[in-house]
Amino acid sequence: MTPRSGERFVLRVTCSDEIGIIADIAAFLAARRLFIVETTNFGDAVAGRFFLRVVFSPENANFGMREFEREFAPIATKWKMQWTLADLRVKPNVLILASRSDHCLNDLLYRHRIGALEMTVPAIVSNHHDCAWLAERHGIPYYHVPVTPSTKAAAEARILEIAEATRADLVVLARYMQVLSNEMCAALQGRCINIHHSFLPGFKGAGPYRQAYERGVKIIGATAHYVSPDLDEGPIICQAVEPAGHAHTPDTLAAIGRDIECRVLAQAVKLHIEGRIFVNGAKTVVLD
Amino acid sequence: MTPRSGERFVLRVTCSDEIGIIADIAAFLAARRLFIVETTNFGDAVAGRFFLRVVFSPENANFGMREFEREFAPIATKWKMQWTLADLRVKPNVLILASRSDHCLNDLLYRHRIGALEMTVPAIVSNHHDCAWLAERHGIPYYHVPVTPSTKAAAEARILEIAEATRADLVVLARYMQVLSNEMCAALQGRCINIHHSFLPGFKGAGPYRQAYERGVKIIGATAHYVSPDLDEGPIICQAVEPAGHAHTPDTLAAIGRDIECRVLAQAVKLHIEGRIFVNGAKTVVLD
Amino acid sequence: MTPRSGERFVLRVTCSDEIGIIADIAAFLAARRLFIVETTNFGDAVAGRFFLRVVFSPENANFGMREFEREFAPIATKWKMQWTLADLRVKPNVLILASRSDHCLNDLLYRHRIGALEMTVPAIVSNHHDCAWLAERHGIPYYHVPVTPSTKAAAEARILEIAEATRADLVVLARYMQVLSNEMCAALQGRCINIHHSFLPGFKGAGPYRQAYERGVKIIGATAHYVSPDLDEGPIICQAVEPAGHAHTPDTLAAIGRDIECRVLAQAVKLHIEGRIFVNGAKTVVLD
Amino acid sequence: MTPRSGERFVLRVTCSDEIGIIADIAAFLAARRLFIVETTNFGDAVAGRFFLRVVFSPENANFGMREFEREFAPIATKWKMQWTLADLRVKPNVLILASRSDHCLNDLLYRHRIGALEMTVPAIVSNHHDCAWLAERHGIPYYHVPVTPSTKAAAEARILEIAEATRADLVVLARYMQVLSNEMCAALQGRCINIHHSFLPGFKGAGPYRQAYERGVKIIGATAHYVSPDLDEGPIICQAVEPAGHAHTPDTLAAIGRDIECRVLAQAVKLHIEGRIFVNGAKTVVLD
Repeated sequence: MTPRSGERFVLRVTCSDEIGIIADIAAFLAARRLFIVETTNFGDAVAGRFFLRVVFSPENANFGMREFEREFAPIATKWKMQWTLADLRVKPNVLILASRSDHCLNDLLYRHRIGALEMTVPAIVSNHHDCAWLAERHGIPYYHVPVTPSTKAAAEARILEIAEATRADLVVLARYMQVLSNEMCAALQGRCINIHHSFLPGFKGAGPYRQAYERGVKIIGATAHYVSPDLDEGPIICQAVEPAGHAHTPDTLAAIGRDIECRVLAQAVKLHIEGRIFVNGAKTVVLD
Repeated sequence: MTPRSGERFVLRVTCSDEIGIIADIAAFLAARRLFIVETTNFGDAVAGRFFLRVVFSPENANFGMREFEREFAPIATKWKMQWTLADLRVKPNVLILASRSDHCLNDLLYRHRIGALEMTVPAIVSNHHDCAWLAERHGIPYYHVPVTPSTKAAAEARILEIAEATRADLVVLARYMQVLSNEMCAALQGRCINIHHSFLPGFKGAGPYRQAYERGVKIIGATAHYVSPDLDEGPIICQAVEPAGHAHTPDTLAAIGRDIECRVLAQAVKLHIEGRIFVNGAKTVVLD
Repeated sequence: MTPRSGERFVLRVTCSDEIGIIADIAAFLAARRLFIVETTNFGDAVAGRFFLRVVFSPENANFGMREFEREFAPIATKWKMQWTLADLRVKPNVLILASRSDHCLNDLLYRHRIGALEMTVPAIVSNHHDCAWLAERHGIPYYHVPVTPSTKAAAEARILEIAEATRADLVVLARYMQVLSNEMCAALQGRCINIHHSFLPGFKGAGPYRQAYERGVKIIGATAHYVSPDLDEGPIICQAVEPAGHAHTPDTLAAIGRDIECRVLAQAVKLHIEGRIFVNGAKTVVLD
Repeated sequence: MTPRSGERFVLRVTCSDEIGIIADIAAFLAARRLFIVETTNFGDAVAGRFFLRVVFSPENANFGMREFEREFAPIATKWKMQWTLADLRVKPNVLILASRSDHCLNDLLYRHRIGALEMTVPAIVSNHHDCAWLAERHGIPYYHVPVTPSTKAAAEARILEIAEATRADLVVLARYMQVLSNEMCAALQGRCINIHHSFLPGFKGAGPYRQAYERGVKIIGATAHYVSPDLDEGPIICQAVEPAGHAHTPDTLAAIGRDIECRVLAQAVKLHIEGRIFVNGAKTVVLD
């Protein structure tokens, strides 16, 4: 059979890895005539953790999320699961932060416009005015929140306010060139993605293309990761690379890098909003 | 928990995609205290087919394959499954056919020697003498089966005899430069892998590197596929590519190609012997 | 020394490959104190053709292109060269043709805006209205030239008129979904780049992502090429690929393909406007 | 024309970048009827250095290297060049050092055997006995030079003796797991290539695959570089990468890494013996 309706729900589960978990979940779904469209999982043998993502489609029209959650609760309790259920047709709110460079912002907005990223962008925040016109053209509210060393705490508080007011499910740092405070990192833990313009762990910190030029590497890259208090040490979501050579300058490396950054950040956002990423200690499990 | 024993078994299942299949299988495994180490699946919404690969490890030492098969049969019948159960510690017999070029053969034997490919190579067959020394150095019987247009049928019969005698689970054409007859393709269906030295469907037939040179492509590749009566049209298992440019000649393209062919063929053999490939019509499902 | 001025000129030469050509050109440049910033060349041993691209920077401020051309003419005559001299600060006019899909158009305009593609876009032509707003937002004239089987000749004539009126140095088919007539191909020979959404020569013609899906390839790609009367057979400029798998549908392949198409087309346009591409029979020489 | 003879010579030049260098060299070659088969160069605008590699083929049979060198000397003096002239048919002597792992050694010997690496391997040195059989099978002398902390200086002296006795043009550390002393690094400067099993500068030092696993990177790589006293800081020659994911363990990463290491090291050796690499401060210029 193939799914009977266009409805799609995502069940995400993580717990200690034991015999019987999949059996319980699969039996639960089958008993309610919920067709498994896609399911991926991973058992981390070292950490003893189990991660599961199931996309299912109800055979009948009268599926209710609240009922599912109520009835699934005993299974979740039995296995001490962390879990979520989401309706794939409900687009998550993704708040985008940018500074002056607009290549990642432009790319995200383009993918948003053509439906390649199924999200709502309730607002764009920037410490500069440069990208205001882009926001305007896409009909998205633009918040200018300048940052100086002395106003940093206030600026962060303002951004968190905006995140709350817009009910942001995810905050994306699209080349937002400010280092977040530990407090802000903590407040956004697991729901704030940054793009770092190097192939981490190489070239942490400032000026990675210049660092790459000076070291003479033959490949450059970019890294999307969840933000954590340790700068450039958050769980890595995805990375991509391109060849480089002796004829490149920091500027031409940066030009190649722009393309890599766009692709990697867009991919990370897509994986997140589809519920495919689990944080597993200092690393991620990506179920795609 | 983590698996209690080093034993690993692979259950492979394919059937029509319906609600309840995973539930039945997972319940069956859980009831016998079989720990799921790894499981991947795919539901082909267009074909309505379901494909599943489960690697499990028994919690207790007294697991019996015959008992599993006997008890699983009713489930298999219920869902009209095609299925197999295999012990991952039992190495499959892989018969290798080669002609004059030995790069793929050398690579397969190297990976075999260091344990990267967990297989037994009961024999090497070739229509030439060139690779005999390689077989000898690895202590593998070498069968010289020359082929001319008039002896082709007899040669193929001889090869099938050797495949049968060595109980070959898989036949690998490691740059074996003979086109197999339809009869031989049929006899080896689903268990004969060929490496084609182009990025199929581009450059079918003879001299693909010369074809690539003449067309002026900027990327070349290689393709591992199951052999089918339609030449170079069998289900594709994996492909890989490398950049090319105007300064390449057919010879330098072939030199680059050798590396690609080795990697792609080794990868396809590894996927096959780990039970990760399902033929799905004219295509493959690769559960990795 | 390093170049004394920001001026950059590109000399492009092709002729039969003989001893003494580089000596003549290098002596000519040195005698006029023209510093070679970058030079690449290729001798095609099969075709016996020589291709050269030199970027030079005058040591002194009074460099004149007309004088260079007049004085270089005897050398060009001696070796029967085809050659051009261009001022790198003069941006070429690039006319863009699009249909409904706007990913390539959007990408080209973005790179144009940030200066990653140093070109002028004097006009955008489309057989649909969909992209008019994009042109407007970038302040570029938009010509709507509808095409039906009966108006095709007139539409092509109109486009050639626009190309002439805008003094287009290059015409880019940014997913312009019309097959050009032989006459139009001839009129634009060597200065019209198309993006084909497959890894040519695989999947020529219509619906390449569907073809790729049905063939079950494990890698998909895109190809930028000069337009020629033989459909999808023009000289290939560049190609790029991404992995694919059994879980992809024609739609998800097309989504991956969009990114590849953007990158490959932008790269081809960049190579062309920097004077790096020579057509060499049915192929290209790309001096980068 | 195409070259009149099979003879190929490589002229390598580096000096301060000035107007007239190429003119002088090209005139010199043309006057002696030396056909330029291939020439690549690079002007480092930051360092003000010029790098040139010319492959030429004499039109006539009576070319003499000593005569070339004598006559070229004034040009070299004029521009303060460092330069070399080599006959491409004379295979360089490449001494290989290995420890226990033999994947790189096996790969190099295979490429050597089929002529993909045009070099002579006069000897293999190892601090273990494991690879002796491989050397024997290829008919190459095997020197067992064990190393302990107390015998390290003597061992290095012995290796340098072997390098001298075999007139080694290049020493390749094919997963030779010993850190060379500063003295040995100095003695082999510019002619000793190491393969590091990480994508430098990430994961320097010991256990890079474990480091990569623990950091959770999504791409792993390998780096071939010239050995320098600063561990893992020598000029990078080439790098390559492959995707990784959450399901990999240090062991499976190492298995993927083996293939990358083989390819990268073989590529670096090929570039070196073809005279394509120039050390440029802490970096390399690779003229290919």
